[in-house]
Amino acid sequence: MKIAVDAMGGDLGPQEIVKGVIEALKEYDVSILLVGKKEILSNILSNYNYDRNRLEILNADEEIVMTDSPLAALRQKKNSSIAIGLDAVKKGDARCFVSTGNTGAVMAAATIKLKLIKGIERAGIATVLPNAKKSVTILMDVGASVDSKPEHLLHYSIMASEYAKIILNKSEVTVGLLNVGEEETKGNELAKDTFVLLKKCLPNFYGNVEGRDIYKAKTDVVICDGFTGNTILKVSEGLAETLFDMIREGIKEKLQYKIGALLLKPFFKKFKKTISYSEYGGASLLGVNGYVIICHGRSTYIAIKNAVRVSLNFCKQNVNDSISEKINALSQFR
Amino acid sequence: MKIAVDAMGGDLGPQEIVKGVIEALKEYDVSILLVGKKEILSNILSNYNYDRNRLEILNADEEIVMTDSPLAALRQKKNSSIAIGLDAVKKGDARCFVSTGNTGAVMAAATIKLKLIKGIERAGIATVLPNAKKSVTILMDVGASVDSKPEHLLHYSIMASEYAKIILNKSEVTVGLLNVGEEETKGNELAKDTFVLLKKCLPNFYGNVEGRDIYKAKTDVVICDGFTGNTILKVSEGLAETLFDMIREGIKEKLQYKIGALLLKPFFKKFKKTISYSEYGGASLLGVNGYVIICHGRSTYIAIKNAVRVSLNFCKQNVNDSISEKINALSQFR
Repeated sequence: MKIAVDAMGGDLGPQEIVKGVIEALKEYDVSILLVGKKEILSNILSNYNYDRNRLEILNADEEIVMTDSPLAALRQKKNSSIAIGLDAVKKGDARCFVSTGNTGAVMAAATIKLKLIKGIERAGIATVLPNAKKSVTILMDVGASVDSKPEHLLHYSIMASEYAKIILNKSEVTVGLLNVGEEETKGNELAKDTFVLLKKCLPNFYGNVEGRDIYKAKTDVVICDGFTGNTILKVSEGLAETLFDMIREGIKEKLQYKIGALLLKPFFKKFKKTISYSEYGGASLLGVNGYVIICHGRSTYIAIKNAVRVSLNFCKQNVNDSISEKINALSQFR
Repeated sequence: MKIAVDAMGGDLGPQEIVKGVIEALKEYDVSILLVGKKEILSNILSNYNYDRNRLEILNADEEIVMTDSPLAALRQKKNSSIAIGLDAVKKGDARCFVSTGNTGAVMAAATIKLKLIKGIERAGIATVLPNAKKSVTILMDVGASVDSKPEHLLHYSIMASEYAKIILNKSEVTVGLLNVGEEETKGNELAKDTFVLLKKCLPNFYGNVEGRDIYKAKTDVVICDGFTGNTILKVSEGLAETLFDMIREGIKEKLQYKIGALLLKPFFKKFKKTISYSEYGGASLLGVNGYVIICHGRSTYIAIKNAVRVSLNFCKQNVNDSISEKINALSQFR
């Protein structure tokens, strides 16, 4: 299985991404197409020993940066690593594209180049969050699109369900609709209209769930519009970081605390790993003909390595075929 | 200063609320109008010694429960503790109404009975969240209304600013608009339109902020629609609880961790207090002619005591007068 990895665009630079890719080659049965500026990448790679039959550089002269407007960047930078990497997937040279780049640009380029799966109106991003049941909850959409319609949320529910079955290794999963209360009549216009549609068309619909239920693992999947989903991700990130900073600061106050913290250090290290996004290998863009994983801009080499692992799983199980099938079956409910 | 406290409606029962009120009487220069079923309250009060000149029962035969539809409950239960308590504020028998009851019912009843402040189209709920700067960030709206218009968010910005000045004891505060990115062009339709309006009409507007900035304390106030705000509160609550549960579970694994945890126990106790909503004494309903504090259904007696403290502050400083003044001044920007 060959995976294309965007070597540009990460906040930590191409060195970090190359390091992640080298680690992935060691651990998994995978071939890598490393997309980016050939000279820079060759230079970095010269520091490593690796199986040259399984790693190839695909030159891309241009780079889309975080401040670029997605659509303008795609028009002006035809040879960006994002465009070249997605072309490789389109041509069948790679099965999946992994990028730490500008989310908007990756999503727009993927929609244009790979096209939407038949029957799907809008692609969306699914991510996983650790939960109280020592598992993960799948949250979708987390920022692909901000003005959603009920129909989009129905499609997200179907896509996220198929995705969740693979991630959680379950044959059946439940979907909750994020709302401000559990009652059917709660919520804004979008939530109320979506509730009616999901109740009618989604056999695995659980009902409304609230923000706290994402972490309490009430359902396997939680669906919301991209504005809310993106906010949930960022609030969670900010709160977890702030709590840890407060703990770090606070334990300096007394010797007793310092000793306690020292004893607990290995625990906290493991714990931070459990709740770290790095472990989950990025978020998946669902709804396009092809596999695309979008990683956090701040991804470390471990996150990159894990993204390669997730993308392998993703491709092997043909999520998109199951999604197509379920979307086609939707007509029976209309 | 006389404060009306709704003794019914809390998840922990009237005993807990009475206990909080008795504590408040001991600590603050306040008189209490305890609203609820007279017989039940007299019975509970007979267990306490307190200054009878400063505590009076106001009988309310009916009770609005969480599962009641707010508007139907107001029509059918004319003698609910919520209705009677708000009437007391309207008549001037109390300066503020504190309730742990059904948020929707309190808000609807307050809007009907106390009426909106002239120029304000919709009331909203402001709350405080602990932040990384050892202070609090004011978040509004957290669930009063779910389909907001830009004009509503402008009014929330003004109301929350005046409220924040008192809570933070600052003469100037900054307001951030919650969005999925910092750039002006980001966001859903509501966020984009609101950005333009705030930029034009709100002198203390900072610009867009993201979910993580609430806890990083980038601005004093963060404004969003009630659906998003409510989700932020509940996600934060769920995440913090889940993290603590995970820590509690995890430290059982090894003796070394258990000893470490024991040494850190006083720290964690203090820390949980820092981030507990109980300490902040509830959320404030802003925009009506009168002072109303809405407490969490699960409020402990400490939360009730603190709500009385906050309501005293709130009334003494005449927040509503400053709000009226600023809303009137808005016309100069049009």
